[in-house]
Amino acid sequence: MLFLASICVFEWRYGSSEMRQLFSLENIVRTYILVEAAVLHGLEAVGVAPKGCSDRVRGCASRAREIAEEMYKLEKSRGHDIASLVEILSRECAGECAPLVHYGLTSNDVIDTAWAVLLRDALDILVGRICKVLEKLGKLARDYADAIMPGRTHGQYALPITFGFKMANYVYELSRSLERVLEVRERLVRGKLSGPVGTMAAWKGYGLAVEKHALELLGLKPHPIATQVAPRDGLAELAMSLAILASQLERLTLEVRELARPEIGEVWEEARRVGSSAMPHKRNPVVSERVAGLARAVRSLALGFLENIVLWHER
Amino acid sequence: MLFLASICVFEWRYGSSEMRQLFSLENIVRTYILVEAAVLHGLEAVGVAPKGCSDRVRGCASRAREIAEEMYKLEKSRGHDIASLVEILSRECAGECAPLVHYGLTSNDVIDTAWAVLLRDALDILVGRICKVLEKLGKLARDYADAIMPGRTHGQYALPITFGFKMANYVYELSRSLERVLEVRERLVRGKLSGPVGTMAAWKGYGLAVEKHALELLGLKPHPIATQVAPRDGLAELAMSLAILASQLERLTLEVRELARPEIGEVWEEARRVGSSAMPHKRNPVVSERVAGLARAVRSLALGFLENIVLWHER
Amino acid sequence: MLFLASICVFEWRYGSSEMRQLFSLENIVRTYILVEAAVLHGLEAVGVAPKGCSDRVRGCASRAREIAEEMYKLEKSRGHDIASLVEILSRECAGECAPLVHYGLTSNDVIDTAWAVLLRDALDILVGRICKVLEKLGKLARDYADAIMPGRTHGQYALPITFGFKMANYVYELSRSLERVLEVRERLVRGKLSGPVGTMAAWKGYGLAVEKHALELLGLKPHPIATQVAPRDGLAELAMSLAILASQLERLTLEVRELARPEIGEVWEEARRVGSSAMPHKRNPVVSERVAGLARAVRSLALGFLENIVLWHER
Amino acid sequence: MLFLASICVFEWRYGSSEMRQLFSLENIVRTYILVEAAVLHGLEAVGVAPKGCSDRVRGCASRAREIAEEMYKLEKSRGHDIASLVEILSRECAGECAPLVHYGLTSNDVIDTAWAVLLRDALDILVGRICKVLEKLGKLARDYADAIMPGRTHGQYALPITFGFKMANYVYELSRSLERVLEVRERLVRGKLSGPVGTMAAWKGYGLAVEKHALELLGLKPHPIATQVAPRDGLAELAMSLAILASQLERLTLEVRELARPEIGEVWEEARRVGSSAMPHKRNPVVSERVAGLARAVRSLALGFLENIVLWHER
Repeated sequence: MLFLASICVFEWRYGSSEMRQLFSLENIVRTYILVEAAVLHGLEAVGVAPKGCSDRVRGCASRAREIAEEMYKLEKSRGHDIASLVEILSRECAGECAPLVHYGLTSNDVIDTAWAVLLRDALDILVGRICKVLEKLGKLARDYADAIMPGRTHGQYALPITFGFKMANYVYELSRSLERVLEVRERLVRGKLSGPVGTMAAWKGYGLAVEKHALELLGLKPHPIATQVAPRDGLAELAMSLAILASQLERLTLEVRELARPEIGEVWEEARRVGSSAMPHKRNPVVSERVAGLARAVRSLALGFLENIVLWHER
Repeated sequence: MLFLASICVFEWRYGSSEMRQLFSLENIVRTYILVEAAVLHGLEAVGVAPKGCSDRVRGCASRAREIAEEMYKLEKSRGHDIASLVEILSRECAGECAPLVHYGLTSNDVIDTAWAVLLRDALDILVGRICKVLEKLGKLARDYADAIMPGRTHGQYALPITFGFKMANYVYELSRSLERVLEVRERLVRGKLSGPVGTMAAWKGYGLAVEKHALELLGLKPHPIATQVAPRDGLAELAMSLAILASQLERLTLEVRELARPEIGEVWEEARRVGSSAMPHKRNPVVSERVAGLARAVRSLALGFLENIVLWHER
Repeated sequence: MLFLASICVFEWRYGSSEMRQLFSLENIVRTYILVEAAVLHGLEAVGVAPKGCSDRVRGCASRAREIAEEMYKLEKSRGHDIASLVEILSRECAGECAPLVHYGLTSNDVIDTAWAVLLRDALDILVGRICKVLEKLGKLARDYADAIMPGRTHGQYALPITFGFKMANYVYELSRSLERVLEVRERLVRGKLSGPVGTMAAWKGYGLAVEKHALELLGLKPHPIATQVAPRDGLAELAMSLAILASQLERLTLEVRELARPEIGEVWEEARRVGSSAMPHKRNPVVSERVAGLARAVRSLALGFLENIVLWHER
Repeated sequence: MLFLASICVFEWRYGSSEMRQLFSLENIVRTYILVEAAVLHGLEAVGVAPKGCSDRVRGCASRAREIAEEMYKLEKSRGHDIASLVEILSRECAGECAPLVHYGLTSNDVIDTAWAVLLRDALDILVGRICKVLEKLGKLARDYADAIMPGRTHGQYALPITFGFKMANYVYELSRSLERVLEVRERLVRGKLSGPVGTMAAWKGYGLAVEKHALELLGLKPHPIATQVAPRDGLAELAMSLAILASQLERLTLEVRELARPEIGEVWEEARRVGSSAMPHKRNPVVSERVAGLARAVRSLALGFLENIVLWHER
């Protein structure tokens, strides 16, 4: 069992397997390869690269694991991950294509564009999940539209509400997060292919055309302008939107944890586990508590992305 | 000079006078009064309040300072600010209007709706400022489109760029913040008038009509549903958007601070001040440094708004 | 009533009057004057300044308000606050003392050393408060040592405890914060008098003697070495210690808020106020809620002090 | 190569192998076993457990990997990790010892005490590293005591300093972090063995004796009182101290990055790597940049530990 060597709980305890697969180092390298191939496609389209180079590089994506292993071995002597990848890909398509691999690119063209692809896929998963939660909450809102219960403010009895009304509030709150996630997607999921300082200098007059063909293949819009890297505000906005979403989910699960107190007893988590090693009779709302704990982590992580915006010059 | 009693630098050193006036306690109370008046307008529209009540309360807004002073004096014995205001307003329009002041409302109806008005006005100021900065940067981008200079990555010389290109990148980055601010406005600037737990219970069948008339008068859309309070994610989103904007501005001023080093000398701040008490010859980029310092404060403050989302029950 | 022009709640709503007085702009300027006087005392001790200069400057401290008003007026044209103060103080002690005011100093010698004095006084107040809280909790621990109540984990009934045991845990937790505050004091409350880059260059061979005499008068230890400014980790450590303390107090008041739920009813806040403008029967634990809200603010503010450490070069 | 399945950069890119081994899941489970054994040692000492039980459990530590694998398999059906471990350990020492494994304990007795052991070992590594850095900086301070260079404030030339003076300032700053780390160690590295709500109820009169013998074996002092868990302020203090240390190191590496600009050229990183995939001539200060990036992560992570303090009741 691999995970016994892990130090990070996200490696084995938290996170869905599809998200974990998506962000695995192996898949990241696979996506790098697809970006290098897409740029070659652009270079073919403008007549700089001979037809077929792009396909040859793209073919390497199916051996991403093997290439990634070699790449990180090579990095040890080269001291540079993308340079190592380029060296391998050039060797793989020896001949006239070789010198055109990574032609006109800087490492961050590959990295930032690959992450645009990865984040797009991650957002698709996330949006699907939010929609499912909304649906479930919406059903609860309808099913319990008339289930009267105390409204509470300051933890004290206020006027009566229904459980459906309570749920409907969460539907509204979470739908606002869905909106935000869709809006950040528009700004964040964009390719960046413009060379070491963003001027497309190596591609001369045909730079915009290379970018256009390459990004179309990847299904991405471009950043209209960039430095060596895509602007970092998009990642910060994503992190913040997720921190808000996580905080809203914490509010929802706080509702569960409080209403599940034995003195209140209005809501419970379905329980199929040992409550406690010392007091096995307990019905601890552990799933809800886990959401609260993870929300704290998400809020905390968001900070770093803000500082990250303050890059030097062209980076 | 008032500010010598101040403990908070925002009272006297930072912030424009128009923003400071907008968020002064006096103007907040004035806005509370306008919200109470708007609700009376709604109650008049549905026939619950006699015509004229709304105008009588609205009339008090011109004496906001005086009323605010009395309100905070009263709060000392009452222990509740809005209850104190309602007491004063009821007395001011003695007669049949008196019992209808604040009818069906909870304190947060007044507070949250007043803040929607205040934040709308603040966002108007902010949007105007961002546009001015964009215009200025745009002009620099055009004027220096051909002014060649070194592009820099990792602080090292990379390929050449132009100063106009550099500025154009900031135009793009800041325009993304402008987009964000306009989007958060749509979610944040909304009235909340639905009583102690959000059910409009006291207004019976005509609740939505009261809300509609009241908010139309204030120029606000409603939150479609709420608890005792408007959902707190809107404030968090605003705080985050401002933290991103501030970080972008820090990046811009970091550019100035670095390029103004005597060894580089490519850009300077206009200086009209003593550089240093000990070394008066220096040309310190102090305005840029101030932006960096304030950016830190804005990032820092954003955090609290995230935790703020996790309210209990109906609050 | 002054505070109606305020935008910051700490100006009028939160904070004790003694803390507010301590950190008022007027008192900060007064402390600046005392630092300038202390350095003159050092310069007298080594024979650079004629006897009496220090006393003349110290005498200005009693007119701090007036001098502060003039200083900030002057700053408008000079663009520098400490340079303006030095100009005024030099004029106040015209004659042979005038050129020796601020001799060998940089602005931050004055500012950082003044803040060491202010923070020492603030920590004295704080330590006194923590001790009072500990005493009160200690008394509760003893008085209720046998008052049996449910222990709760995950919000569920666990094994029985006593209310005294619960309080004793808070005594331990808060005593750890007291320890921390006393430890940070040792590192933070130190004078910094070593000139523009920290080398005491202007004072030649007698620099350490000037510093020693000046700081002894102020009752401060020196930083053994510094740049233009005192190292910023001390402020960060203070901010962090306060954030931990605030979080512990939030935990204590969360206890109150939860146990005061009507379904539980084991603890209440003394109430002498209107519970709610709409539901006056309620006993809202508003003091406890306020502590939670302020804890959020303290946590949030702590962040900025971390970034603050990362100064450039000699600042 | 295992790490291709990783999603967390700390699994493969950052962190020393000794730290990674220390915090691996396998070593955590090994430490859990040692804590269970230590408690049995305490139970033997007071005559509750027959001699030999402790040794039998301790013997399992050498098969930690195998036991950990089984434990996490079992957790899938049991829904509880520590309960699963206890089940396995009881089976391993079948007979009269079996019912005494975990006797009187709650899961967090094991977890929190194990983490005290792990953090003690981690702090030993860290303290060793800080001392090495201090030594190296101290040597630079002495070697370059007379190497004159410009002092800089606001990025502008100020008075001259020496490179040794600059280094001496970092020695002082980092030595303050060393002090802090040693102080937090005293509060953080403590065992917690007092049962489900902290009252040692199951152990009756001999609770303090069990705790004493168990913790002596582990080389830990006890928390004098606790709830279900050790107070969380210690972890927050550690996180904050590390965030301060990281920020100081960022300041040191910022010095390098700035002085390594080609226009300044006073300091460089030793370079043995490809500077850039597109511009291989560059000497990018990438190690220094990495420290800055990691400092951001450390600051960011610290936040969550503050919120973590605010536990409910006895947890």
